[in-house]
Amino acid sequence: MTGVTPVVSVVGRSNSGKTTVLEGLIAELTRRGLRVGVLKHAGHGFEMDREGTDTWRHRRAGAAAVGIMSDDGVAVIRALEGELPLAEAAALLGPDLDVVLTEGFRRAPTPKIEVMRAEQGGDVQTPPHQLLAVVADGAMKTGAPVLAFDDASGLADLVAAEIKRPL
Amino acid sequence: MTGVTPVVSVVGRSNSGKTTVLEGLIAELTRRGLRVGVLKHAGHGFEMDREGTDTWRHRRAGAAAVGIMSDDGVAVIRALEGELPLAEAAALLGPDLDVVLTEGFRRAPTPKIEVMRAEQGGDVQTPPHQLLAVVADGAMKTGAPVLAFDDASGLADLVAAEIKRPL
Repeated sequence: MTGVTPVVSVVGRSNSGKTTVLEGLIAELTRRGLRVGVLKHAGHGFEMDREGTDTWRHRRAGAAAVGIMSDDGVAVIRALEGELPLAEAAALLGPDLDVVLTEGFRRAPTPKIEVMRAEQGGDVQTPPHQLLAVVADGAMKTGAPVLAFDDASGLADLVAAEIKRPL
Repeated sequence: MTGVTPVVSVVGRSNSGKTTVLEGLIAELTRRGLRVGVLKHAGHGFEMDREGTDTWRHRRAGAAAVGIMSDDGVAVIRALEGELPLAEAAALLGPDLDVVLTEGFRRAPTPKIEVMRAEQGGDVQTPPHQLLAVVADGAMKTGAPVLAFDDASGLADLVAAEIKRPL
């Protein structure tokens, strides 16, 4: 990859199944050889760290960034002054990713997969020009492809086409 | 800053007071206008995330990097295949830092502050050419400056001189 990592957003109501759809899509894209990053929007009151940990103490002392590394991973917490634009936030995931999937970020100008449960009702919220696909458990009135919750392969095909990576 | 961010390591036995020394040093350097990053080495069995969280589910599905963002910070977890060299790990903290302080990483070829408690006994472990200072609660036989635990200002002076940033 060179340049900016493409971003595709998974949006939908609370409890519509966004994380489940993401799990399937991450696994399928990873199986096809892509390096996938995922960015989630924290709810209100989310705590990045637990009070009293060493990293929490370092942040409280004023550190702009704190990290903890083991032999199988590294976790980094960076202070922000207000939310970053999505492209900048995605870049923080690392320079070596083929695609960044987001959970939420409905207002970002990204291609979107909207997740819907029939029992929750309502219409598709994503503007048509951003709508890559709908994942739903029933029929939907929309011009975009409608996929079942278990069709991770079909969803991966659409994402691959969107980011112009034949897989 | 241009180029590689300078790294200074705080080392010492378990419970010698490394985190306390770091807290004072972070606060003092931040007060002087530096952007400080901190990297800690995880102990054995450290878990980057809690089972069942969305980010944990994303990682389990194969994501190479997962992040969660709020309006005052962003946390990112990246998978590693074995530990990174310290310079690469420090770079993951971000490109906009003036100095990265580490807790641990004794074997890295970095300038070091060694923290010692008299009641724990023992000699200075850091090779003389790496030893920037000793923080101790008593007299020490060493060629390096020996500072008290509450002398964050003196320690900040030594770090500033080491990274060639008059403050």
